[in-house]
Amino acid sequence: MALTGLNLIGNISSGKGTTTFFAANPSTSKNLDTTFIEATNEEVNMAVEKAESAFSSYSSKTSEERARFLETIADEILALGDELISRCMAETALPEGRLIGERGRTMNQLKLFAKVVRDGSWADLRIDTALPDRKPLPRSDIRQMQLPLGPVGIFGASNFPLAFSVAGGDTASALAAGCPVVVKAHPLHPGTSELVGMAILNAARKTQMPDGVFSLIQGPSVEVGMAIVLHPKITAIGFTGSFRGGKAIFDAANKRSTPIPVFAEMGSSNPVFILPGILKKEKSNIAKGLAGSLTLGVGQFCTNPGLLIMDQSDDANDFLKELGEQIKSSTPGTMLSAGIKNNYTAGVNKLTEAQGVSLVASSSETETGNHAQSNVFTTGVHTFMQDHSLEEEVFGPTLLNVSTGNKAEMIKLAESLEGHLTATIHGTAAELQEYSDLIKVLERKVGRIIFNGFPTGVEVCDAMVHGGPYPATTAPQTTSVGTAAIKRFARPVCYQDFPQSALPVALRDENPLKLWRLVNGEWRRE
Amino acid sequence: MALTGLNLIGNISSGKGTTTFFAANPSTSKNLDTTFIEATNEEVNMAVEKAESAFSSYSSKTSEERARFLETIADEILALGDELISRCMAETALPEGRLIGERGRTMNQLKLFAKVVRDGSWADLRIDTALPDRKPLPRSDIRQMQLPLGPVGIFGASNFPLAFSVAGGDTASALAAGCPVVVKAHPLHPGTSELVGMAILNAARKTQMPDGVFSLIQGPSVEVGMAIVLHPKITAIGFTGSFRGGKAIFDAANKRSTPIPVFAEMGSSNPVFILPGILKKEKSNIAKGLAGSLTLGVGQFCTNPGLLIMDQSDDANDFLKELGEQIKSSTPGTMLSAGIKNNYTAGVNKLTEAQGVSLVASSSETETGNHAQSNVFTTGVHTFMQDHSLEEEVFGPTLLNVSTGNKAEMIKLAESLEGHLTATIHGTAAELQEYSDLIKVLERKVGRIIFNGFPTGVEVCDAMVHGGPYPATTAPQTTSVGTAAIKRFARPVCYQDFPQSALPVALRDENPLKLWRLVNGEWRRE
Repeated sequence: MALTGLNLIGNISSGKGTTTFFAANPSTSKNLDTTFIEATNEEVNMAVEKAESAFSSYSSKTSEERARFLETIADEILALGDELISRCMAETALPEGRLIGERGRTMNQLKLFAKVVRDGSWADLRIDTALPDRKPLPRSDIRQMQLPLGPVGIFGASNFPLAFSVAGGDTASALAAGCPVVVKAHPLHPGTSELVGMAILNAARKTQMPDGVFSLIQGPSVEVGMAIVLHPKITAIGFTGSFRGGKAIFDAANKRSTPIPVFAEMGSSNPVFILPGILKKEKSNIAKGLAGSLTLGVGQFCTNPGLLIMDQSDDANDFLKELGEQIKSSTPGTMLSAGIKNNYTAGVNKLTEAQGVSLVASSSETETGNHAQSNVFTTGVHTFMQDHSLEEEVFGPTLLNVSTGNKAEMIKLAESLEGHLTATIHGTAAELQEYSDLIKVLERKVGRIIFNGFPTGVEVCDAMVHGGPYPATTAPQTTSVGTAAIKRFARPVCYQDFPQSALPVALRDENPLKLWRLVNGEWRRE
Repeated sequence: MALTGLNLIGNISSGKGTTTFFAANPSTSKNLDTTFIEATNEEVNMAVEKAESAFSSYSSKTSEERARFLETIADEILALGDELISRCMAETALPEGRLIGERGRTMNQLKLFAKVVRDGSWADLRIDTALPDRKPLPRSDIRQMQLPLGPVGIFGASNFPLAFSVAGGDTASALAAGCPVVVKAHPLHPGTSELVGMAILNAARKTQMPDGVFSLIQGPSVEVGMAIVLHPKITAIGFTGSFRGGKAIFDAANKRSTPIPVFAEMGSSNPVFILPGILKKEKSNIAKGLAGSLTLGVGQFCTNPGLLIMDQSDDANDFLKELGEQIKSSTPGTMLSAGIKNNYTAGVNKLTEAQGVSLVASSSETETGNHAQSNVFTTGVHTFMQDHSLEEEVFGPTLLNVSTGNKAEMIKLAESLEGHLTATIHGTAAELQEYSDLIKVLERKVGRIIFNGFPTGVEVCDAMVHGGPYPATTAPQTTSVGTAAIKRFARPVCYQDFPQSALPVALRDENPLKLWRLVNGEWRRE
C-alpha cells in the first residue's frame, strides 16, 4: 500500500493544507519518503463533525457488532504485513523483534476489549425496581448504566508507535465504550500511523461502521493538536507523552467553555526500593534485572526505573558497583528521534552538573548519532530532598541512586515523592512485613507496586493499573492499560419509570444478554 | 447541648479568629443567638493536618469498623432530638415535617453506605493470577482494588441543611471510602452544622476513630473555603451549590500545583417535555403534578423543573392555563435567606423584562419578607434558542414554558441544551417509541431521564444518578446521590507479585470476606 501523506477524515483522504513534513530515520537522521501534509483547521473540524454525526449510529451498534469491529481492526493490522513493520522500523529505529511483539500486543488489546464489549458487564448495570407500596412514599423503578461520552480525541505516543498510537490502548478502549475517535498521529511516525489508520478504516467498512467513526489527523504543530482539544464536540482526550504536553492539554481542556476530562499519562521516574535483607542474598540477580529494565528499549518506557533507593551499606556499595559493571557492558541503542536524544542529553547533563550528584558508571561505547549512553548516578538523601528536580524523569536509560541512612529516612524520602506510575520493592517476605509502613506510603504515591520484579513490562489484563497520582497522570482515578480503561470514556445515566420496551436492552427485566447487574442490592446475571 | 459557635478541629473546639457572624431567621430576618467565629487559616491548616494524620489509621480500619462508625453517626444525629429540628427550622424556615423527613434521609444515607462498606464489593476487586509458563513471557500475579484518596474537603449545601450538609451524602460517601473529611459548614445554618458536627465527633469517639477523621470549619467568607481547596493535603472536593461557587472551586483546584478532582453539583433547570398524545389524556393530572413539583420546598431543589417544552396546540394552551390556575392558588413560602430571595427576584425580573417572554401566572398572595411568589412564564422556541441565558436556572419556584412548532423543533431545542441533572418526558408508551430520537439526545444532556413523573424527589439507591454534563456538574462521570457516589473518593492501585500475607485482605486468595471479585476474567465471590 503506497503512503499518501494525507489526513484520513473518515473515509475521505484529504490534504488541503500547505504545511508539509517528513518522517526521519533516527539512525541516519535522513528524511524518509512521502511528504505528509499537516491538517488544516477545516480538516480537523470536518473530522470532529463526522465523529459527532457517527456517534448516534456507532453508539447504538450491538455489542457483538462493536466487538467484531475491534477484532477486524486487529486482523487488518496483521494484514498490513511486513510493510508496517519495516516502515515502523525506519521511523523509530526500534528493532524488528520488538515491533513484531508490539504489534501482537496491539492486536491482543483490541481483542481483549472485544471480549469486554461482548461480555457487557463493564457498564456497571444497576436496577432498583419500583416499590409502589412503600411508605411514606413509593419508590420509582430506577435503572442505571454507563453510556459513551461522545467523540474522543486521542494523541499517539512516540515510544509505542503501535500499542499506544493510532490503534493503541486509548483508541481500543474509546471505541469499545462506543465513542468515535479522532487520532492525532505522533509526528515521529506518520507513515506507520497512516498504515494503521487505513487498517482501521478498512475494518470499519468491512463491519459496516458509520463514516466518521475514525479519523486520523497529521501534523507536527501544537496548533493542530489543540484544534482537536478545543473543538466543542470533543468530549474527552486520551494522551500519552511528556509532562509539558499533557499539562498544556489539561489546562486548555479545563479552560474550554465546557471543560472535558483529559486522561494524560505523562510518565514518571518509577522509584525502586531495595531493602537490606534481600540485598545480601540476591545482589547479582537484582543488579542484572535492574540493568536490563533500565536499558530495555533504550530506556524509552514510561515505567523505566529512573530512581533507586537503598540504605547506605557495604552491600549497597557492592550492588552499585555491580550495577555499574552491567551498565558499562550494555550496548547503546538509537533513540526515537534527534529531539528525544537532545532532551535526554540535557537531562544527563543536568545530573552530571548537579551539586552532590556523582556518576557511578556509563556504558562504554562512544555515542554516535542518536545513540544514547546508559548512566547510573548516585546522591544522598539530603541532596535529593532539597532539590525536587532530581525526581523528574530523564526519558532514557539513566538512573539516579539515592542513599538513605536507615528505614526512617527511606520512608521519609518515600513520603516526599510526587506521584509516579509505579514503585518497586525488593525484599524478603519478612522485610515486606517489616516495611508495611513503606507500602502504606507508596499506595498513595503510585498506581502499581511491584514486589521483587521490575517496572517495565505492563501486562494488559483486568487488574492492571497504569496510572497514578499527578504529575504521573492528570487522571489518577483511572488507568490507561487494562480493561478498566474503558470506564474513562463513559458516564452513568439512569432511567426512571421507563416502560420495558423503551429501556436499553441491557437494562430490561429479562436480561437477554445475561449481564452481571446489581438488582435490588444483589449482583446477579439471570 | 449549648451551641458554642466554635470550629471543630477534630476533637478540639477552636475559635482563634476575630471575624464573627450570626445565623438569621429567614422568616423574621432577625439574627439568632450564638456568635459564630470564622476559622483562621491556622485553624483550617490544623484541621487538614489532623485529617492527614488520621488517614493512615482511618483507612486501615476494617469495613465492619467503618460501617459501625457510619451507623453510629446516624444514631447520634437522631439523639440530638428536637433541638436539631428546631434550630434547623429557625435557620432555614423549612417546615418541621420536611426536616424530620430530611433527617430520616440523612440517617438512611449513612446506613446505606454502611451496608456498601460492609459488602465491600464496591472496591472493584480484580485478580489476574500468575501464568509462570506462558510463552513468550510469563505473566505476573496482579491484583487491583480501589483505595481511598486521602483527606477530602466537603462544602455543605444551603438547601439541604441535613442531607447535603455536614453529615450529608458527600460526607457519608467519603467516610465510607476511607477518607477523613473536613467540612465547610454552610454559613446559613451554622448552628445546625455545629450540632451535626458534634454528633459525628461523638460517633467517632464511641467507635474509636482517630482524632482528625472529621473537622468542621465555620465562616461566611470565600477565603475560608478556598483555604480548604488550596491546602496541599486535600485530595478532593465535594460541593453542592451555585454555578458561580462550584466553578470558582473547580478553577482553583485545577490551578493548584497538584490539581485535585472537584465533584461540584451546580444545579440546573431540568427540562420537562410533554408530548401531544399524553397532553390530550392527562392534562389535569400532569398540571397538578408539575405545579406541586415546581413549588415543593419553595422551588429550592437542584432538580426543580424550571423549563417546560410542548408543541404549540390548543391542548398546550389549555394545559398552560390549568398550570397557571394551580400556580395562582399555590401558597408562597419563605426562602432560605434574604440573599437567595434577592437572587430569585433578580432571576424573575430578568424573565419579566426579557423580549418575547410573557407571564402566564403568578401566585396571587402579595410577597412579604423572604416569601417567594411562584411564576410561570412562556416564550417561543426561536426566542429561547437565541438567548441562552433563558436556559439558566432561576433558583426558586419559577418555570419557563417554551413552545415548539413540531417534533423536529422539539428535538432541535433538546440538542441545543447544555448539561442538566434531569430531563422528564411525559408521553404515552407509543409516543416514547415515536420519540426515541428525543431520548437519544437527552441521554447526552442529563444524568437522569424520568418518564411520566417529576424530577424532584431523588431516591437514594444503587441505581440513582444525580449528576450530569457540565454545567450541571464539574464531574459528569460520577453521581452525588446513590451508592455509586463512593467511587468519587477512591482510585485504583494494583499489587504485582505480592506474597499473600502482604496483600490487603480483600485481595487474598481465600477471599475471607466473600467479596465479588473479577478473577481471571470471571466475577465470583468464593
